Amino acid sequence: MPDALIQHPFMSTGALNTCTNEAMVRAMLAFELALAEVQETAGILPKGTSQRMTTAFWDHAFDLDAIASGIASGGNAAIPFVKQGRAALPEDLKSCWHQGATSQDVLDTALMLLLKPRLKAIDHLLQRTKSASLVLMNTHAETPMVGRTLMQQALPITFGVKVAHWALGLEQARRRLAPLIESGLPVQFGGAVGVHSGWGEQGVELMVMLAQKLGLATPVLPWHTDRQPIHALATALDAVAGAAEKAALDIALLTQTEVGEVSEPGGEGMGESSSMPHKRNPVRCALIRGAVRQVHGHTTVILNATAQPLERGLGEWHAEWAPLVDSALLVEGALERLVELFEGLEVHSEAMRRNLEITGGAIMAEPVARLLAPVLGQDAAKRLSTEAAETARRTGRGYAEVLGNHGEVKEGIEASELDRVTNPALYLGSSKAQVERAIAWLQAN
Amino acid sequence: MPDALIQHPFMSTGALNTCTNEAMVRAMLAFELALAEVQETAGILPKGTSQRMTTAFWDHAFDLDAIASGIASGGNAAIPFVKQGRAALPEDLKSCWHQGATSQDVLDTALMLLLKPRLKAIDHLLQRTKSASLVLMNTHAETPMVGRTLMQQALPITFGVKVAHWALGLEQARRRLAPLIESGLPVQFGGAVGVHSGWGEQGVELMVMLAQKLGLATPVLPWHTDRQPIHALATALDAVAGAAEKAALDIALLTQTEVGEVSEPGGEGMGESSSMPHKRNPVRCALIRGAVRQVHGHTTVILNATAQPLERGLGEWHAEWAPLVDSALLVEGALERLVELFEGLEVHSEAMRRNLEITGGAIMAEPVARLLAPVLGQDAAKRLSTEAAETARRTGRGYAEVLGNHGEVKEGIEASELDRVTNPALYLGSSKAQVERAIAWLQAN
Amino acid sequence: MPDALIQHPFMSTGALNTCTNEAMVRAMLAFELALAEVQETAGILPKGTSQRMTTAFWDHAFDLDAIASGIASGGNAAIPFVKQGRAALPEDLKSCWHQGATSQDVLDTALMLLLKPRLKAIDHLLQRTKSASLVLMNTHAETPMVGRTLMQQALPITFGVKVAHWALGLEQARRRLAPLIESGLPVQFGGAVGVHSGWGEQGVELMVMLAQKLGLATPVLPWHTDRQPIHALATALDAVAGAAEKAALDIALLTQTEVGEVSEPGGEGMGESSSMPHKRNPVRCALIRGAVRQVHGHTTVILNATAQPLERGLGEWHAEWAPLVDSALLVEGALERLVELFEGLEVHSEAMRRNLEITGGAIMAEPVARLLAPVLGQDAAKRLSTEAAETARRTGRGYAEVLGNHGEVKEGIEASELDRVTNPALYLGSSKAQVERAIAWLQAN
Amino acid sequence: MPDALIQHPFMSTGALNTCTNEAMVRAMLAFELALAEVQETAGILPKGTSQRMTTAFWDHAFDLDAIASGIASGGNAAIPFVKQGRAALPEDLKSCWHQGATSQDVLDTALMLLLKPRLKAIDHLLQRTKSASLVLMNTHAETPMVGRTLMQQALPITFGVKVAHWALGLEQARRRLAPLIESGLPVQFGGAVGVHSGWGEQGVELMVMLAQKLGLATPVLPWHTDRQPIHALATALDAVAGAAEKAALDIALLTQTEVGEVSEPGGEGMGESSSMPHKRNPVRCALIRGAVRQVHGHTTVILNATAQPLERGLGEWHAEWAPLVDSALLVEGALERLVELFEGLEVHSEAMRRNLEITGGAIMAEPVARLLAPVLGQDAAKRLSTEAAETARRTGRGYAEVLGNHGEVKEGIEASELDRVTNPALYLGSSKAQVERAIAWLQAN
Repeated sequence: MPDALIQHPFMSTGALNTCTNEAMVRAMLAFELALAEVQETAGILPKGTSQRMTTAFWDHAFDLDAIASGIASGGNAAIPFVKQGRAALPEDLKSCWHQGATSQDVLDTALMLLLKPRLKAIDHLLQRTKSASLVLMNTHAETPMVGRTLMQQALPITFGVKVAHWALGLEQARRRLAPLIESGLPVQFGGAVGVHSGWGEQGVELMVMLAQKLGLATPVLPWHTDRQPIHALATALDAVAGAAEKAALDIALLTQTEVGEVSEPGGEGMGESSSMPHKRNPVRCALIRGAVRQVHGHTTVILNATAQPLERGLGEWHAEWAPLVDSALLVEGALERLVELFEGLEVHSEAMRRNLEITGGAIMAEPVARLLAPVLGQDAAKRLSTEAAETARRTGRGYAEVLGNHGEVKEGIEASELDRVTNPALYLGSSKAQVERAIAWLQAN
Repeated sequence: MPDALIQHPFMSTGALNTCTNEAMVRAMLAFELALAEVQETAGILPKGTSQRMTTAFWDHAFDLDAIASGIASGGNAAIPFVKQGRAALPEDLKSCWHQGATSQDVLDTALMLLLKPRLKAIDHLLQRTKSASLVLMNTHAETPMVGRTLMQQALPITFGVKVAHWALGLEQARRRLAPLIESGLPVQFGGAVGVHSGWGEQGVELMVMLAQKLGLATPVLPWHTDRQPIHALATALDAVAGAAEKAALDIALLTQTEVGEVSEPGGEGMGESSSMPHKRNPVRCALIRGAVRQVHGHTTVILNATAQPLERGLGEWHAEWAPLVDSALLVEGALERLVELFEGLEVHSEAMRRNLEITGGAIMAEPVARLLAPVLGQDAAKRLSTEAAETARRTGRGYAEVLGNHGEVKEGIEASELDRVTNPALYLGSSKAQVERAIAWLQAN
Repeated sequence: MPDALIQHPFMSTGALNTCTNEAMVRAMLAFELALAEVQETAGILPKGTSQRMTTAFWDHAFDLDAIASGIASGGNAAIPFVKQGRAALPEDLKSCWHQGATSQDVLDTALMLLLKPRLKAIDHLLQRTKSASLVLMNTHAETPMVGRTLMQQALPITFGVKVAHWALGLEQARRRLAPLIESGLPVQFGGAVGVHSGWGEQGVELMVMLAQKLGLATPVLPWHTDRQPIHALATALDAVAGAAEKAALDIALLTQTEVGEVSEPGGEGMGESSSMPHKRNPVRCALIRGAVRQVHGHTTVILNATAQPLERGLGEWHAEWAPLVDSALLVEGALERLVELFEGLEVHSEAMRRNLEITGGAIMAEPVARLLAPVLGQDAAKRLSTEAAETARRTGRGYAEVLGNHGEVKEGIEASELDRVTNPALYLGSSKAQVERAIAWLQAN
Repeated sequence: MPDALIQHPFMSTGALNTCTNEAMVRAMLAFELALAEVQETAGILPKGTSQRMTTAFWDHAFDLDAIASGIASGGNAAIPFVKQGRAALPEDLKSCWHQGATSQDVLDTALMLLLKPRLKAIDHLLQRTKSASLVLMNTHAETPMVGRTLMQQALPITFGVKVAHWALGLEQARRRLAPLIESGLPVQFGGAVGVHSGWGEQGVELMVMLAQKLGLATPVLPWHTDRQPIHALATALDAVAGAAEKAALDIALLTQTEVGEVSEPGGEGMGESSSMPHKRNPVRCALIRGAVRQVHGHTTVILNATAQPLERGLGEWHAEWAPLVDSALLVEGALERLVELFEGLEVHSEAMRRNLEITGGAIMAEPVARLLAPVLGQDAAKRLSTEAAETARRTGRGYAEVLGNHGEVKEGIEASELDRVTNPALYLGSSKAQVERAIAWLQAN
């Protein structure tokens, strides 16, 4: 596949380098060696077995192509891997290899081993977005800008509070994902049908020991067709994706030429167009949004594969592999770009101020209506504040001026009072308190 | 829509009765009255306001049709509701109504109020499936049946351990959903652009008080376009759906005429066909699976609506309402049926035993291979155990018999030993230990 | 469910009135009566049977509640409907009722009957959007506006060509859906297992006659578990949804306060906010986008239910009903709003012109680079045109002016030439030709 | 990514070899060279330009790594490719390169060029499944087997008619996809904002010429943000996937140990387990089902990216690339396996016959009820036929025998008649006629 050109651009380059076919084979081998080790500890295999096995594989090069082409007949990579591994062992060790395990044990565990550092990297990137958010929140706690609902100018907020909302989304997602790094990546070990056939209750003990040895979580039972751990993992990744997507969507909207309130950080060639020299495209936002949409598709696959038949899926399990790994790589890629955005975002507070004024103050119609209500009555106040907004928009005159010319208003309301309620920068509500509250919560964990 | 005929059959009838247009209006009213009450407490509204407001609505009948047809112009039900509510109030209370709130505050909060009892009902149903599972697990801890991987007979398990796997899936999903009943259903209160415009930091306090008053969770900040709470809720519901689907899939497969290991509980007309008198369809499984697939679709909508622009969604928010409520109703409906299945499941242990034998014992090829390996060598043992399985399948002779006739086997292996390893009921692995371990975990919480 | 408040707002009110539980029962009855009629024609039932049956049901009121509550035991509405219908018939007609049919025959056919007028209505609405588009395209064939890529101002286009692109999307979707009205809504008639058990080859003839009688398409064979017709239908509806969504997305972006190039048509209360008097929300866009996102979710359910097991789905079939009907109703609702948008759209050509100028002409950097290239060389030309764009953006001076001050440019390029290539209205490319080509294609069918 | 081990197993190996990063670069180059050629023809570029350009690239090796790492700054592969291409050209050709094109023109066209041979290969594989189906349909036109609804034995069908239903599904999908090979893979050429900026109406002519030159379809207009072609393509691929999935699901169910009516074709190591020697897993079914589920996820991404903003997507476009290409590769992979299944399927007609008998004939309850109705009345007939089925199931006696012992039956019905209606092989309905009708339709195109 033209991966490097159409798929990898959305992923973390570093992650791609750690998450290869070779790494997958190493992870499968780690499973088998750890299994031999715990079986040795349990007295099932003779002392020295696991050391001899490790030595046998020390400089053994697995034939990746042979494994890959061997998948067709068994349906997963573990089957040809196990065969090839056994062939590489001295005769007396062959029967000690993969003992009591099934291919799903190998593959599920290998995927968990592969994903664990990726989840840690994702957590780390989320921590970096948090730090960068805190800087932006502090810097812009009192930078007024217009809030927009249904993409229409509504009432003032601050840029600090906007960042706080992004940060809360990301941190909620992080707190959902973080515990899964320790408890949501369970070892798989159940044997052919998940009941440790041939082992008796010792099977459960081996499973527990194996988890510890590999640094994975201990499941209550093997989970060959109980895919709740996969569902929890995939949807937690999707939550991170969604939180990143929210920030990228906002940034993309704020970088629109006509809005211009933030810019993506510059850099040689960043955001360039193949034809238009003046363009500075929000290319990181595009890549984040492109990544995240693919994650949502992958998650849909996982949701629809949660129920797997009897003791082993017939395609449902197989369908999980790529979506799960790809989702992790896409989320990590999206976050790498989000970190760049957050750490280098150019904030144009003067443009924010300019945009606050382009309606001639008409966005202040709500506080004006509140001010006028005691004098004109609720309904008339709402009507007048609306009509004046229309007039200000059409004529280009200031909102306070239009209002002040109205008879009843002129009589009943102080001009200074009118100026005050039509000044967006004085109407920021709980923005500052929200930023403080958000900072406290973000730092609490 | 022909809901009663094509949509409601998948839902809980009881839930449908509590989750109506009227209930939605009551929930919106509850928000407004609670808002007035906390504003009174905070000294913003005169003492007695909320009591007078409550009285004014005591026997007020909202005009549902007018609200419904008023949605077209504002885009959500809160707008015509607020208008109608204001019109119903005495003149001096009109300005006290909906003060500082926005339509999304009303609607999001109303949905949380509507969903809370549904989540509790879902938790209750999950508890019932757990109790029923425990009974089945205890009863069938030693009932042997064949485990099936890729839907092929593999090796023996017990029915108890199968139920344990269902129960673990359901309980994992329950433990994911349960905390959300307390912490995942937050009040919404942020005003026009989410910063309590016009209130200053008091806005945050009102939000906190409002949450307490309504028995909802307190969010860190308003979450108008931070949809992590909705993502967490929808995906947790989807996890429950998936766990129910797994059990229903297994039961459906086990009720197949040729398998016949369990039956859905009977009852007048249950599982009937419009044309075939002899049929007893696994109709509850069909309805559960039908419900769950729709839930996955709804969840996909929520995933793709996680990122909402700026301070209010432009369709993204609107797209959440029906999928979220429908998912809750579908999950509850699915669980009602699952409870019936679990509490009344007919388990045919004799059929399980019969099916264990239909391959002539060939499912025992793995332990046989282990037994033969020291005598014949690993590869020859695997080959012979496979060939004998084929011979047994073709000729209808017993597996032990076929094996025993083989020269090297006859010499090297005791017949009794051969009988032992070809007896499925003696090869249940950790099934019993797994059931015990599962029971301990299920009861730990 | 609180349908009227959270689901119906996205749907067509007229459609909701034709697509009820009662209509569903009438459609099921239409199937049964037509079946009796063709069986009479075929000599299977005595002459007069279908007339007597029709008479028997002439003023028979089916008990909808009983049908609804009867679904639980059989799993679909046809089973209790058939029972109730048989009970209502004179003794000697009972055996003539539902003869050789199965519940899926009744239900699938009834859904097709229900959907046919909806698809026609959708086609009609699409024709109206086409007519309205043609008016807009003609009116604005030469109205310049800025084209925006990655939401950044890029180069000029015309509003006419933008509308042409919307219209092509909608018309492509219409031409995909239209043939399905005639050929994509097949009758279902196969009996218990889809092979007309008990009828021999006459079964196929009855199926053909039944299709003609009901005005539905004749399938090659019964399609109980061949769901290609449903897949084709659902994805064609989804394509219409996507085409409507594209137009709504653009309109929403163009109505942004800072852009202001179009407005949704006004009207009493349209686009109002519950709190902000000055707002005029693009509420139709919000409702269209809200509807369409739900359609995509429903389509996902259909995709994942395409494969149905053996001779009848076990939940897969059941999962189709609501998503399919809801999708049709949502698409029709979305189109009703789109027609309003297209027929009443307020186009602000002066704002379009104003926005063309806000970069000081810097959007013309590409033609400038082309003009400068022969004089300065390709690379230097691109560099200078970019730098001048930055300078114009920062200093607020005109782009032509900044460029003209540059030494080599001053010498090598005529000022008039520079003015020409920096004038957006003279750089509209094939916009006019595209509008003409689009009109020809739109009218060709 | 560990593609070779977790993603490629689902894809066509041959396809993977033709669909590489190198092939993508070649396709982008093909676009640029064709563009120069038509511009030369149109008199825009000097005669000989395209030949010189072609020569310049004759043995030019593009630096794939540089292109890949250059994507980050521009957001797609075309930007660094165009840069690198221009750098490789003699000075005087640089300005002739990529003239009037934009990166989306290059990339969309390259993807269409890449996909065209894949769609042809898919069509070819579908033709092969059709041929194989015809053989199976002819061979088994009269092979009785039991039809199963909701996975319960229902009434007899033939294996031929079952294959006919698979074949119809596949052929419907093929007839939906086939026209797209000619008309659904349009060239993309619109320039920066889709209106051929700088070209005037000649732009449209160039687009038309370019399509002819590249053997792609001519769009009405450029389709940068009109993604109906992509929607049509992706959903047509999804339909093929769904049709393959249906057959694989049935085959998987029929290979269950307890059913055993068909087997996947054998072969060295096919269907082997890593632990159980006796297993013969339906591994092709597993891989098909695994592939198809991933396709549905990819399609969901495309559905949700149909609406793209203004003149270029901001992530929506980017999100299409991998899902579209992967879907094609997954569908082709699934079909390669399906061809193997259809061409080599082992059909066990004796097992089909055996399964017809395991209910003691009780599946014939419907015809029995029809036979008894005139004697006992409709209701009593249905009741008796049901009760006798239960009795036969419990006691293991034959259905005809149980029925024949009933008083009224003994008196009113001939024993031979009873034998006839309880003989499944005489109750095959229109199976034969259906197979004939299907063959005629399949061969009609």
